[in-house]
Amino acid sequence: MIRERHLFGPGPSNPYPEATRALAEPLLGHLDPEFLRIMDETCDMLRTVWGTDNARTLPLSATGSAGMEAAFVNTVHPGDVVVVAVNGLFGQRMTDVAARCGAEVVAVEHDWGHPVDVDRVLSAHPSPAIIAAVHAETSTGVRSDIAALGAGKGDALLLTDAVTSIGGIELRADAWGVDIGYAGTQKCLGVAPGLAPFTINDRAFERRVEKPRSWYLDLGMLGGYVGEAGVKGGQRTYHHTAPTAMVASLHGGLTRILDEGLEAVWARHQEAGDTLQAGLQEMGLELFAAEGSRLPELTTVKVPEGVDSAAVRTQLLDRHGIEIGAGAGAYAASVWRIGLMGRNARPDAVLLVLAALQDVLDRA
Amino acid sequence: MIRERHLFGPGPSNPYPEATRALAEPLLGHLDPEFLRIMDETCDMLRTVWGTDNARTLPLSATGSAGMEAAFVNTVHPGDVVVVAVNGLFGQRMTDVAARCGAEVVAVEHDWGHPVDVDRVLSAHPSPAIIAAVHAETSTGVRSDIAALGAGKGDALLLTDAVTSIGGIELRADAWGVDIGYAGTQKCLGVAPGLAPFTINDRAFERRVEKPRSWYLDLGMLGGYVGEAGVKGGQRTYHHTAPTAMVASLHGGLTRILDEGLEAVWARHQEAGDTLQAGLQEMGLELFAAEGSRLPELTTVKVPEGVDSAAVRTQLLDRHGIEIGAGAGAYAASVWRIGLMGRNARPDAVLLVLAALQDVLDRA
Repeated sequence: MIRERHLFGPGPSNPYPEATRALAEPLLGHLDPEFLRIMDETCDMLRTVWGTDNARTLPLSATGSAGMEAAFVNTVHPGDVVVVAVNGLFGQRMTDVAARCGAEVVAVEHDWGHPVDVDRVLSAHPSPAIIAAVHAETSTGVRSDIAALGAGKGDALLLTDAVTSIGGIELRADAWGVDIGYAGTQKCLGVAPGLAPFTINDRAFERRVEKPRSWYLDLGMLGGYVGEAGVKGGQRTYHHTAPTAMVASLHGGLTRILDEGLEAVWARHQEAGDTLQAGLQEMGLELFAAEGSRLPELTTVKVPEGVDSAAVRTQLLDRHGIEIGAGAGAYAASVWRIGLMGRNARPDAVLLVLAALQDVLDRA
Repeated sequence: MIRERHLFGPGPSNPYPEATRALAEPLLGHLDPEFLRIMDETCDMLRTVWGTDNARTLPLSATGSAGMEAAFVNTVHPGDVVVVAVNGLFGQRMTDVAARCGAEVVAVEHDWGHPVDVDRVLSAHPSPAIIAAVHAETSTGVRSDIAALGAGKGDALLLTDAVTSIGGIELRADAWGVDIGYAGTQKCLGVAPGLAPFTINDRAFERRVEKPRSWYLDLGMLGGYVGEAGVKGGQRTYHHTAPTAMVASLHGGLTRILDEGLEAVWARHQEAGDTLQAGLQEMGLELFAAEGSRLPELTTVKVPEGVDSAAVRTQLLDRHGIEIGAGAGAYAASVWRIGLMGRNARPDAVLLVLAALQDVLDRA
């Protein structure tokens, strides 16, 4: 028997009940007409949460990190210049993944905790093939201005990580000029980890690598897998066995979000984050992310001087069943990450995490 | 509400109840001590079903096809000669995946429905870096002799697809000389699709590509992810967010199998397959796979002259809630594939599928 946790870290979050219930439904085969309907509806709902009309919008059959890999492996031709905005761990990771795909990487480094400096990124190279940036940096709790990058990208493709933003804050891939985007299911979409919601527009697809180094993530073949309109006449072709339980679960989570209304869900995240951040500051704690760029769904807070970061997290877990995250990279011991995502973006969760943190700090 | 199916196709099969129940348990974070215990136990149980002591035995966070990609992308150096035994769709796929990794592929073609010709494969090249073969061809229902390939491999690495054999028929990776193996969860392991059980021994790991083209499937980094003994002193390092619900489900399925006893599970699959194959022949149907090499867990049968293959499958699904598979590749319309895997390897399932097929054929 597993003791229930409050998953208030940087992800996974506690799934929406609709997502969990779908996992317990009878399993369907990946070619079952009923499953194909679920897959079609899932792709449609993903278009809504991405803010896109892209035909090629689908859940890749692996976690968000594989979404990053799919984004680069399908679009980087050997020697392509890829400008990467690095303002946290996931920007850093992009440089590694892009380099493995043969890119000439131009990394634009930022201090962690600050948003992407759009001017520096846009002027980093005169004619990059791709400009890549993270919308919501999971490592620092910072939001960057993707729309401004899209407005200034010129002929480059704009590649965006939306792992921690999708389903939690405003995201408008088409309006912002995002050409390639990937995300995860286990944050604000409120579904267990295991799939990577992905979207690519025609402009990027036409420039893709014809035969990418990855067979599993080859978007040319995956078109047939989900049978999108316009791809092989909408015919389904077998590529790999879809993870049917996880897709059904994503369907459940997305249904819940769209029933509530996407803008209402964004507002719920904003309110929870605002209240949490005000409460933490009232407790005398200092926030890590730069003011004006703080994500509501993921709050970073500095560990007070003299407090053992790991001991506090262990106490929270053992006493109260609450998981919060350590900091990332160099900030592992000096920052906590508190996520109120998906189902957890609620007033009662805010009260609980504030009270529990106060309780544990009082005992320290 | 989803109507329950009898999943008697080539996979997925109906999960073991223990695997389904685990999906409905409270979700755990990927760094939760409780989850780390589940992951450790899962890797241990995977060693048992693989028949290996390999420290590097883990569930990759994607479906079986990604297991194939991980096997090649980590071990093929540019220009390496890779001999691939092709006796079905999955051997064919290996040639594509290996070529994308830069291999010089030597494909040894066989007629579909027949096992791998060990002598031809072993003599196809004087000094291959890798010899690759499928243990149980999902496309044809044929078993090949992996032990004989292992005995004759010389200095080459032996890479084996065990997607449809693991947890269903005898598999002894170490005793047979398998250096690299991948599998899937959705066949005889009786778990939903979504993970790729993977194993690699020290001999293959030492020859691996230092920085493979895939970041997501880089085994050098994944060592830290599962914290195996001897890898970075057993320290866990964050690589990607583990698909915690699916890993818990695999833990449930493996627990069930090992509680019953692995050899008892193999015997149950053998008995179900033998009974099914005898029954189909008594109905006057002809089996497709060569006698002596028929998989018990996946039976291929020729569609009788004049019968509409797809119509029969639709009738089985609509009237009886039974899914069976079409043939693969050139045999799509002329062969059916009937799988009795995992939970479905039972006498009552044999009776049901035989009676239902007779019923539908009688009405045709």
